[in-house]
Amino acid sequence: MTVFNNVPTINFEGAASANDFSFKHYDKDATVMGKSMDEWLRFSVAYWHTHTFGGEDPFGGPTMERSYQKYNGMDLAKARVEANFELLNKLGITRFAFHDIDIAPEGNSLKETYQNIDTITAMLKDNMKEHGIGLLWNTANMFMDRRFMHGAATTNNADVYAYAAAKVKKQLEVAKELGAQNYVFWGGREGYETLLNTDMKREMDNLARFYHMAVDYAKEIGFEGQMLIEPKPREPMKHQYDFDVATAYAFLQKYDLDSHFKMNIESNHATLAGHTFEHELRYAREMGILGSVDANQGDLLLGWDTDEFPTDIYDATLAMYEILKNDGLGTGGLNFDAKVRRPSHKPEDLFHAHIAGMDTFAYGLKAASQLIEDRVFENIVEERYSSFDKGVGSDILAGKTSFKELEAYALELQEPIEHQSGKQELIKAKLNQYILNANNTVKV
Amino acid sequence: MTVFNNVPTINFEGAASANDFSFKHYDKDATVMGKSMDEWLRFSVAYWHTHTFGGEDPFGGPTMERSYQKYNGMDLAKARVEANFELLNKLGITRFAFHDIDIAPEGNSLKETYQNIDTITAMLKDNMKEHGIGLLWNTANMFMDRRFMHGAATTNNADVYAYAAAKVKKQLEVAKELGAQNYVFWGGREGYETLLNTDMKREMDNLARFYHMAVDYAKEIGFEGQMLIEPKPREPMKHQYDFDVATAYAFLQKYDLDSHFKMNIESNHATLAGHTFEHELRYAREMGILGSVDANQGDLLLGWDTDEFPTDIYDATLAMYEILKNDGLGTGGLNFDAKVRRPSHKPEDLFHAHIAGMDTFAYGLKAASQLIEDRVFENIVEERYSSFDKGVGSDILAGKTSFKELEAYALELQEPIEHQSGKQELIKAKLNQYILNANNTVKV
Amino acid sequence: MTVFNNVPTINFEGAASANDFSFKHYDKDATVMGKSMDEWLRFSVAYWHTHTFGGEDPFGGPTMERSYQKYNGMDLAKARVEANFELLNKLGITRFAFHDIDIAPEGNSLKETYQNIDTITAMLKDNMKEHGIGLLWNTANMFMDRRFMHGAATTNNADVYAYAAAKVKKQLEVAKELGAQNYVFWGGREGYETLLNTDMKREMDNLARFYHMAVDYAKEIGFEGQMLIEPKPREPMKHQYDFDVATAYAFLQKYDLDSHFKMNIESNHATLAGHTFEHELRYAREMGILGSVDANQGDLLLGWDTDEFPTDIYDATLAMYEILKNDGLGTGGLNFDAKVRRPSHKPEDLFHAHIAGMDTFAYGLKAASQLIEDRVFENIVEERYSSFDKGVGSDILAGKTSFKELEAYALELQEPIEHQSGKQELIKAKLNQYILNANNTVKV
Amino acid sequence: MTVFNNVPTINFEGAASANDFSFKHYDKDATVMGKSMDEWLRFSVAYWHTHTFGGEDPFGGPTMERSYQKYNGMDLAKARVEANFELLNKLGITRFAFHDIDIAPEGNSLKETYQNIDTITAMLKDNMKEHGIGLLWNTANMFMDRRFMHGAATTNNADVYAYAAAKVKKQLEVAKELGAQNYVFWGGREGYETLLNTDMKREMDNLARFYHMAVDYAKEIGFEGQMLIEPKPREPMKHQYDFDVATAYAFLQKYDLDSHFKMNIESNHATLAGHTFEHELRYAREMGILGSVDANQGDLLLGWDTDEFPTDIYDATLAMYEILKNDGLGTGGLNFDAKVRRPSHKPEDLFHAHIAGMDTFAYGLKAASQLIEDRVFENIVEERYSSFDKGVGSDILAGKTSFKELEAYALELQEPIEHQSGKQELIKAKLNQYILNANNTVKV
Repeated sequence: MTVFNNVPTINFEGAASANDFSFKHYDKDATVMGKSMDEWLRFSVAYWHTHTFGGEDPFGGPTMERSYQKYNGMDLAKARVEANFELLNKLGITRFAFHDIDIAPEGNSLKETYQNIDTITAMLKDNMKEHGIGLLWNTANMFMDRRFMHGAATTNNADVYAYAAAKVKKQLEVAKELGAQNYVFWGGREGYETLLNTDMKREMDNLARFYHMAVDYAKEIGFEGQMLIEPKPREPMKHQYDFDVATAYAFLQKYDLDSHFKMNIESNHATLAGHTFEHELRYAREMGILGSVDANQGDLLLGWDTDEFPTDIYDATLAMYEILKNDGLGTGGLNFDAKVRRPSHKPEDLFHAHIAGMDTFAYGLKAASQLIEDRVFENIVEERYSSFDKGVGSDILAGKTSFKELEAYALELQEPIEHQSGKQELIKAKLNQYILNANNTVKV
Repeated sequence: MTVFNNVPTINFEGAASANDFSFKHYDKDATVMGKSMDEWLRFSVAYWHTHTFGGEDPFGGPTMERSYQKYNGMDLAKARVEANFELLNKLGITRFAFHDIDIAPEGNSLKETYQNIDTITAMLKDNMKEHGIGLLWNTANMFMDRRFMHGAATTNNADVYAYAAAKVKKQLEVAKELGAQNYVFWGGREGYETLLNTDMKREMDNLARFYHMAVDYAKEIGFEGQMLIEPKPREPMKHQYDFDVATAYAFLQKYDLDSHFKMNIESNHATLAGHTFEHELRYAREMGILGSVDANQGDLLLGWDTDEFPTDIYDATLAMYEILKNDGLGTGGLNFDAKVRRPSHKPEDLFHAHIAGMDTFAYGLKAASQLIEDRVFENIVEERYSSFDKGVGSDILAGKTSFKELEAYALELQEPIEHQSGKQELIKAKLNQYILNANNTVKV
Repeated sequence: MTVFNNVPTINFEGAASANDFSFKHYDKDATVMGKSMDEWLRFSVAYWHTHTFGGEDPFGGPTMERSYQKYNGMDLAKARVEANFELLNKLGITRFAFHDIDIAPEGNSLKETYQNIDTITAMLKDNMKEHGIGLLWNTANMFMDRRFMHGAATTNNADVYAYAAAKVKKQLEVAKELGAQNYVFWGGREGYETLLNTDMKREMDNLARFYHMAVDYAKEIGFEGQMLIEPKPREPMKHQYDFDVATAYAFLQKYDLDSHFKMNIESNHATLAGHTFEHELRYAREMGILGSVDANQGDLLLGWDTDEFPTDIYDATLAMYEILKNDGLGTGGLNFDAKVRRPSHKPEDLFHAHIAGMDTFAYGLKAASQLIEDRVFENIVEERYSSFDKGVGSDILAGKTSFKELEAYALELQEPIEHQSGKQELIKAKLNQYILNANNTVKV
Repeated sequence: MTVFNNVPTINFEGAASANDFSFKHYDKDATVMGKSMDEWLRFSVAYWHTHTFGGEDPFGGPTMERSYQKYNGMDLAKARVEANFELLNKLGITRFAFHDIDIAPEGNSLKETYQNIDTITAMLKDNMKEHGIGLLWNTANMFMDRRFMHGAATTNNADVYAYAAAKVKKQLEVAKELGAQNYVFWGGREGYETLLNTDMKREMDNLARFYHMAVDYAKEIGFEGQMLIEPKPREPMKHQYDFDVATAYAFLQKYDLDSHFKMNIESNHATLAGHTFEHELRYAREMGILGSVDANQGDLLLGWDTDEFPTDIYDATLAMYEILKNDGLGTGGLNFDAKVRRPSHKPEDLFHAHIAGMDTFAYGLKAASQLIEDRVFENIVEERYSSFDKGVGSDILAGKTSFKELEAYALELQEPIEHQSGKQELIKAKLNQYILNANNTVKV
């Protein structure tokens, strides 16, 4: 069976190609700064948005046209596995990511659910081996079912807490079985609807206990993938405990978990928290906790998670700048946690969407690499902070000063103090120049 | 005297130029779709942000370095006039815009204020003639002074209303004298701080009376420039009556003013109102009230008017698309209602900023022109709505149908109704392709 | 059958009652400013949120516990009718509102759908007569089904346009049959996902044609209820054409529809558009287009439509102030377009929620009536604008002035012009005093 | 001299008083939960907004009428000191707070600035002793002057860093001299305008070094007041490093500063960061870092810091709930970091504003105390989490479980798992009841 039979394999054809089913910029094996595009970008397909999502929104039912919609239950689950590998192969993407309930339906009992998961896991394993596909990460969905209405690891209901533990335990085993490179926690229900009925401290303590048990169990079974936390400020809850990278980092430090976890940063979650995507990447990079990326984009005029496919060249360039400065994402990758718009309901829209996202990041990689090779920002920063390279500045950096010494120095200063310009306008013009010229200047 | 003596005349040097004091894309006389870049873009310098603004923000005092800061009063005003024409000439911009108090300080009485204005107006007129510069628009500042604390045309204080009328009368005379192509109303204080002390209806009625008197006086003195309203949702007030283009249009229709006014649309005001820039332009274009543009940009993560110089190529391309579809802006133009960032305090930053803005819109013009020449969006739209070109669709457009007939038709429809895809992802990829290739594909 | 068998009839027991199943402030027949509470407040139950909503959110499935969940199809529809009247009777509410698909499921064809609607309409009619219940308004849901993915009256698909017309035609007939006092249009899909594939002008023209046909058909069948438009800025679409009251008013004027429509104003939609609830009510009142109210509340820190039950006393007081100044809502009412939170899944939560909303607005009515009887805001406004009661002020209001006369007057003014204080802090303290004392001062 | 000669001493007159110059709820020595209102509320006047602020906003000049405006320089500074103590005495407030430049103008050199500060500090000390007034906190303003355009402790300019150190050193000495109970850091310029020219890591490192030097110097001079950080997300910068409480807490932990600092939480900063005021208080309380409060309020529809006087009873009640649960603020207090609206320009508006704020928090204290005495939320929370009091729940809390044990338990669970309702609607109705009845039920 083929689900996408009217879609060809997508190949690189260059910036001027008029073929909608081609890459304009993503040339998998082309070399940029010493590695292939594939090595830098490490694209991954999100199973849920690509294969499970039906097109629903809060005011509308499903719209998607997929040939496997004729199936139900495990038959549907199996058909989606086939669709997944067909899509991966045609796109030339070699990683994917999933939640437990994306790949297999719940059974009538937890035990039956496990059986369903096992069946599909085995099928995935065979296909992964056959097609040379890796698992970027998996996770347990602990937000969709009614049982998690009050939270999972932060629930008020001890039975649910236990149930959540079972689900994560199972997925850690699946992760081990499939060689997942990471394991992700997104706590969609780990927060509150109203503080008025909430014991925040108890919930945060319980969340920390849960994470420690996860770390322990991973060690016990020898799963060596990276543990990741995915911050999001709100939605579905009014407030989620992993609000943004800094909030999650405060939590990890408080509960002695910071050596075990890194961050899975989603662009749309960053902007919902009031940050730019590059801010979250930069902060995580500088704190040493940049793990992986959910590559999508939001609409800054809309107050909810739109999970659009990333097409903004500015965002992609600045994201790839941070990733290059981090020497890549390690075991992480760029996972397209993105869904086609509700009226983009044809199977081929999935391809147009992924092509758009892949080309956007490939172009961003090219532009960012040129920026770095020419040390554009590096030179600006070096010059801008040069007063710390000498005299009182270097003493400050060396920790040799105190308020008394600095005051003595300040009392001798001649006013007004001379300042450099911040040059934001010139810098943005340079950024535009690098982005708009990358087609011509970057040889890959 | 020269204020910008270390800045050369800015020339077009092409996309690859490494000269920070050159245009990469703006080639004044180059032809795009049958007109010169200058004719399409009609750039204008905002006197207040460029010459009067000192770098203050709500938490900080002035920062700018300008050689004329040694002067005061009318001497300062005159030095700024010289700076203005030096900057215009070096940038090759032939239009500017001002508020009354930008060009001349208030005197100790209204009469003395008039005298100051007259002196500077004469000086401007001479310089405009000498340098071949036009006045895009002027206006009266009715928000900065203490006397307007409760509003101007919507004040609770009849004396202030009269004072505001005098100010506008004077500026209409100045507009006539200097051959202004437009006259703008931005009602920064025309709104409310709290509804609890506000008679909204009386204030809106008074505002309409004010506009009618302005129209009458312009006719009386033979000023034939276009009257423009500049919508802004809030700031400094909690709510301003010209919230956005649609709100202003409701007002104009209600008070029989719609034949006299068009809109001066500012990008940053659009986004503060929850709209994209292109939305406001499109709506105004379709309603026939697109007059002029304040070309700047906001930061969608910041909730106030940042008035940044425009550097976003997407916004500029989509704005120029609307302007090209409108066959240009008529008497309007692209006025850089933008200020350098507070730490961009050097004189040359004014040039880097204007160059950035001009190149951004010039590039946007190129990309938009190619999109139109290739009918990219036109073809998409034509195909998308093709069901209205025939059968029941064309009957609907022709006004030949009623609910009864449509019901009869609907009862015979076969379900499910077939739908086209909305193709948003593919369309955004095409937009990227046109933008990123414009350097190569557009011959100007 | 009884769905809410563990819930008693709710009675007024006064502010100090410890009974969760009692009204603290809503005393149906108590008199306020010459009318009963019921006459001023005209509460209505929203069928969809109360009986059809299962507790889903974008990240979660259903949670609600309802005894009728054992049924399906028309049996379920009938069980919900019984639940509706049981709830109305126990709450003492005598109005409700619905969309077509709330009351009856779609059939396999439009014809079958009509039959389902007819069956339930007859059942509703019998129950309404038996229990003395009226229909505040009904409407056609033209956003949930896949067929409306591109819009209904603004679709690109003429077949869908016809289908939408049939649905509205049917609901106008149902409105006539059930004696509905209003008919509402909420255009959830009447807008765009992206301007790039959208012909805004054509869509707005088609929307106007649709409204004209609705007006014509209502006249044809003798339906004399008020037509209402319900503005909402966005969600589910990126932009909806009825963005806010002013935008809808611009549209109605442009297309000669302003004499046929009033506004159904929803609190949560107001805040999503960047307005306070009272702003939208005030503007509509002053323009003469205040029709009805969807009484709910949003969370200003959340960027989506939360549709919470209204509990904010400030909002309710200021809303009731506008409604009292409007001499009530005419044929409109306060419709609880609100849903219990997802974890408030027990049947009794529906009662707690409605009691909370009803008491909130009853309290707001009391506080607002006292504010009006003591002319608190009226005196403030009268004094504040008193300069327009005499001299140049009254000339301005009378239209006797021109810019020339006002300038002559202004030139004689002595500066600085004297100003009153805006007194916002004192006014807010007074508002607090009236709100907090209403329990004691208002005799009903 | 008296600045407020037409304002009487403000006394408590009860909820029904019609005297605008009286307290309706704030009865200084009345006892609530074992302490006086004064002890719980610890009000403080913000010197800058009350005495230094002229009414400016980004679009307008000064408006305030103050008799001391006839003075300049140190004479003005001295007149403001007198005004401060007159206002404190008339309001019965015994604490205040200031930045260095609020109390004394900068001189022509740092040395001269020190002399000005010393002169006014001596005058303050005398007045404090005479009138029985304490200093809640002081701080150095490191954001207003041009020299801080690139930051203070995070500047790129080592000279400025030294200058900032000198300013803080001086203010720590002033704090010691005046017996300040706390010292506050608000880093208005400690962040970035654009990441493109910013070395975030270096700036954060330097900020930490600065804080360590401040801690060391305070110890050296024997200043034992509490060090406080005041988070704010943005404005004036695009991003500030103390974005919110959690972000500041991550920083403090990272740099081993968490034992030295607590938080000064401002309501308006909380909402700008996307949090409720009570969220920030709760989080700080639970982490043990709740230090002091800047009591004001923002407008959630406005995207900037409006610094309004607090009048929202809900916010005040929930804030006082957190403060009571914290057993008060320790050395902290409720500092009115709030300014009268620009058109509230009369001297008496300062009193109306403070009365409004004080009554609001006094009322909030009463309502919160009753909520706690009746254990309203405590009982809800206790019941809600009761599953953790026994069985597997208590094992989880005791750290006795692992994923294996929890899985074994989960496999035996009967589905569906029973859930309590979250009861948000009922809880909000109860909150309303407590707030609206507090006038009657709370005996103080």
